[in-house]
Amino acid sequence: MSHSSSAAAPPARVAPRTPTLTGELLAEFAGTAILILFGVGVVAQVVAGQNGGADSIHWAWGLGVTFGIYVAGRTTGAHLNPAVTIALAVFQGFSWKKVLPYSVAQFLGAFVAALIVRWVYNDAIMTVDPGTTIKTQGIFATLPGTGVSVGTAFLDQVVGTAILVFLIFAISQAKAMPPAANLAPFIVGLVVVGIGMAWGSNAGYAINPARDFGPRVAELLTGYSDALKTGDGTLYFWVPIVAPILGGLLGGGLYKVLVERHLPEPEAAEPEGRVLTD
Amino acid sequence: MSHSSSAAAPPARVAPRTPTLTGELLAEFAGTAILILFGVGVVAQVVAGQNGGADSIHWAWGLGVTFGIYVAGRTTGAHLNPAVTIALAVFQGFSWKKVLPYSVAQFLGAFVAALIVRWVYNDAIMTVDPGTTIKTQGIFATLPGTGVSVGTAFLDQVVGTAILVFLIFAISQAKAMPPAANLAPFIVGLVVVGIGMAWGSNAGYAINPARDFGPRVAELLTGYSDALKTGDGTLYFWVPIVAPILGGLLGGGLYKVLVERHLPEPEAAEPEGRVLTD
Amino acid sequence: MSHSSSAAAPPARVAPRTPTLTGELLAEFAGTAILILFGVGVVAQVVAGQNGGADSIHWAWGLGVTFGIYVAGRTTGAHLNPAVTIALAVFQGFSWKKVLPYSVAQFLGAFVAALIVRWVYNDAIMTVDPGTTIKTQGIFATLPGTGVSVGTAFLDQVVGTAILVFLIFAISQAKAMPPAANLAPFIVGLVVVGIGMAWGSNAGYAINPARDFGPRVAELLTGYSDALKTGDGTLYFWVPIVAPILGGLLGGGLYKVLVERHLPEPEAAEPEGRVLTD
Amino acid sequence: MSHSSSAAAPPARVAPRTPTLTGELLAEFAGTAILILFGVGVVAQVVAGQNGGADSIHWAWGLGVTFGIYVAGRTTGAHLNPAVTIALAVFQGFSWKKVLPYSVAQFLGAFVAALIVRWVYNDAIMTVDPGTTIKTQGIFATLPGTGVSVGTAFLDQVVGTAILVFLIFAISQAKAMPPAANLAPFIVGLVVVGIGMAWGSNAGYAINPARDFGPRVAELLTGYSDALKTGDGTLYFWVPIVAPILGGLLGGGLYKVLVERHLPEPEAAEPEGRVLTD
Repeated sequence: MSHSSSAAAPPARVAPRTPTLTGELLAEFAGTAILILFGVGVVAQVVAGQNGGADSIHWAWGLGVTFGIYVAGRTTGAHLNPAVTIALAVFQGFSWKKVLPYSVAQFLGAFVAALIVRWVYNDAIMTVDPGTTIKTQGIFATLPGTGVSVGTAFLDQVVGTAILVFLIFAISQAKAMPPAANLAPFIVGLVVVGIGMAWGSNAGYAINPARDFGPRVAELLTGYSDALKTGDGTLYFWVPIVAPILGGLLGGGLYKVLVERHLPEPEAAEPEGRVLTD
Repeated sequence: MSHSSSAAAPPARVAPRTPTLTGELLAEFAGTAILILFGVGVVAQVVAGQNGGADSIHWAWGLGVTFGIYVAGRTTGAHLNPAVTIALAVFQGFSWKKVLPYSVAQFLGAFVAALIVRWVYNDAIMTVDPGTTIKTQGIFATLPGTGVSVGTAFLDQVVGTAILVFLIFAISQAKAMPPAANLAPFIVGLVVVGIGMAWGSNAGYAINPARDFGPRVAELLTGYSDALKTGDGTLYFWVPIVAPILGGLLGGGLYKVLVERHLPEPEAAEPEGRVLTD
Repeated sequence: MSHSSSAAAPPARVAPRTPTLTGELLAEFAGTAILILFGVGVVAQVVAGQNGGADSIHWAWGLGVTFGIYVAGRTTGAHLNPAVTIALAVFQGFSWKKVLPYSVAQFLGAFVAALIVRWVYNDAIMTVDPGTTIKTQGIFATLPGTGVSVGTAFLDQVVGTAILVFLIFAISQAKAMPPAANLAPFIVGLVVVGIGMAWGSNAGYAINPARDFGPRVAELLTGYSDALKTGDGTLYFWVPIVAPILGGLLGGGLYKVLVERHLPEPEAAEPEGRVLTD
Repeated sequence: MSHSSSAAAPPARVAPRTPTLTGELLAEFAGTAILILFGVGVVAQVVAGQNGGADSIHWAWGLGVTFGIYVAGRTTGAHLNPAVTIALAVFQGFSWKKVLPYSVAQFLGAFVAALIVRWVYNDAIMTVDPGTTIKTQGIFATLPGTGVSVGTAFLDQVVGTAILVFLIFAISQAKAMPPAANLAPFIVGLVVVGIGMAWGSNAGYAINPARDFGPRVAELLTGYSDALKTGDGTLYFWVPIVAPILGGLLGGGLYKVLVERHLPEPEAAEPEGRVLTD
């Protein structure tokens, strides 16, 4: 997305304003907060409010991604995820200087949103788990599934995030077949719905360090003293941070190698692709 | 489809007709009625007709919003909700003189639609709850969830409506990244699906004074003598009226501050946004 | 949709071919068959194959409508439903001479598709209901819900079809805010998803005489000797024929009165509508 | 899709690059792998990870199709299925020389993706089925449903794939009413959601020889020694290979005969179709 003003623009026309870094960070903050208000909200509703189930969890996480992209998309392209930001820096020329500020903004958005969920769902949490134990800890941050080792959870997060970034690259690439009419946010949200359904039971599909660590700190500060560990006491918080970053690089790289470098050049006058037959 | 004026038409061509206030109020009436025919209808089907569950309730409420917007969108932009109407008056220059008439039309649409549901589902209601008690009262109007205080329900309605209006502003803003191809009604409907899934168990996600009070009066007049109260007798009807109005103002204001004022100016020839990469 | 050939077309260019009546009837046949292959298919899968539930039934019926419209849309506009055909004749100038042929084609498409479902699901039906009784009769044609009178079922079908036709008119009207990018079939399919969820438990949401009577004849001819009656022996087959026709007229008329005649004239250079804010 | 370079292109402009066969095969490989990562992944999650159910299986299979098409669509049109490739060769002029290479690439993509699922879900599979028996065999490849004969399963696969190819032809035909804005992948994905819901219980809706045989070989090589047979020992692996190919030809042919040859010619200046009314 280039918003560069042309040097030769007639003086009567105001040059297009590009977003400031403050604006970008606020957009990443707000977009990630919206994502978490839906994502952590739905798990709170299912686990503590006892309304919904696995399907509503997967749908609402994906919808949260869609809405977060609509919020931040125009300003930053809507990363909402440090693993995406880093993959964009490595593969798409995103400025390395912005990687840390973006990641902090994403973390803060997730953190604040999780505090709001913690606050509004407090009555429901106190009803089902007054001691704020492992029983409701999973509302906020991810844990390995039953019988799943930490090593498998790490592997799962690499694979899940690789799928995510592979598909974000495919769906957002102008010379491929990107959804038009500003509907890419809907399709990217569906990617997260699908990952929740198909890659969710091993490790709770964090696939995003900010999504996981922001709410984990929020619960740690509000009564969940074991929030950094699994049920058997293993330190776990680092897995949904490190593995998604590696997975994003793997997925982005595989997309470049397998698909992008073989794409035909777009024709000038072809506004959109067709599937299969003409 | 050709709406082209003939080259010979200039004097014969009538200037674009703007909607009359009557037309606007009928559109708001009809659009809100459609919303409630689906929204209250699905709860009647689940609670009295015993077909479906939490997921179908959330989907049908959201679809009702989508369809209501298609009905009223061209004429009024489809507010369908006094909290939205007031937020538009405060933040988007919508005429204050129309706020009360719009709200009354929305209330009447919701009221009439709820009477139709009450009528058509009467056999089913009489089968499961012949005394029209608290057991089926929630078909029409919202109540706090189990173990949720009235204060928490109020807070929940502020937050839920803030999310709604924040996202309506984001999705409908021309210089952001709005869905094109007239598909914004679909995406706004999904916002309500997501709110139902993630912000529904504390207080039943009224997030709309007309949606709640219209059907509440309808049930009060058709046998539900305790419709204004919670199960323990607390007067409750005012919560889903006052809290959504406050929440709408909060959400609209946050959107302005966090996102809108930092948006880059649109470029003249850029018909639509892209996500992430080019 | 006008497919008129231009009188002034140069001879080298073949004039646009308009569909023949045979082509139109085959399109209505094929589109309605596709609708029923999904709609009756999903109920067979849930009731006899024991895979899925109320939600998958509502989704697959709606998706069947979407796909049927893609099949027939270009040729006929995809009525797929005598209640729609009649409403279009009354309100939109559709040729009365074609009403009966279209209705017969729709009935035959539904009939043939139901026979295919009957055939392919025979093993599953014989497993759960070897006597082809009321237990699986509802796979093919609708019945009143438990505790619902025939009068209420009739009323329900009037209201449900009124909602359907009201929304079809709203969604397909060029001067309102119709979905573009050829996605109206998706949105109309969602209307049927919503009707299934919110207006499905009283009478099984036939809302279409061909959808109901075609499969009813198919089951009557393949072992379901009581297919024309309810479980207590009341003759019922006429209800989902007569009531949807009346409901379609009611819904189409209400749309004209409440919305259409108040719509603003479209502006020449406005390619698409916007929701709410600019 | 024509990527032909114009003979008269000015020398300064690089001629549009057409995809190489290597690029096409990698795209089919990657697209089919994505499909299977979601499709086999979701069944692993439901059966071994015990998260989700029939509905999430049907949604995630369809979403996998959508994402696979976005990956391969620009390069090959995204067949992802030998039954589709063969039907395109018979009915749409797709090169017969590419049929075998495409099919092998599709098989390999499915095979590799199934191995990844096998690996990442190993902990979960060992928890519920340490002997890798018929209990979890259905994660990877299809089997007839309870009480369904092999003959019925064969018939079911013919019908299911006929529906699939009939609808792919309808949805992707430029002179019909194809979804625009590059959203056909979404609608084709919904076709598979619908087939899963309505044509899934007899034989598990392979409707794709590569989707079934790739993962079947993967499970055969990783502990499932009876992967080629049904629970009672009947050799079954050939059914979801042969029947889909026949079904694809049936569906493609029926579409040509019933719909395509009756389509009106498109008008030059009509960018998109409308449903029903003007």
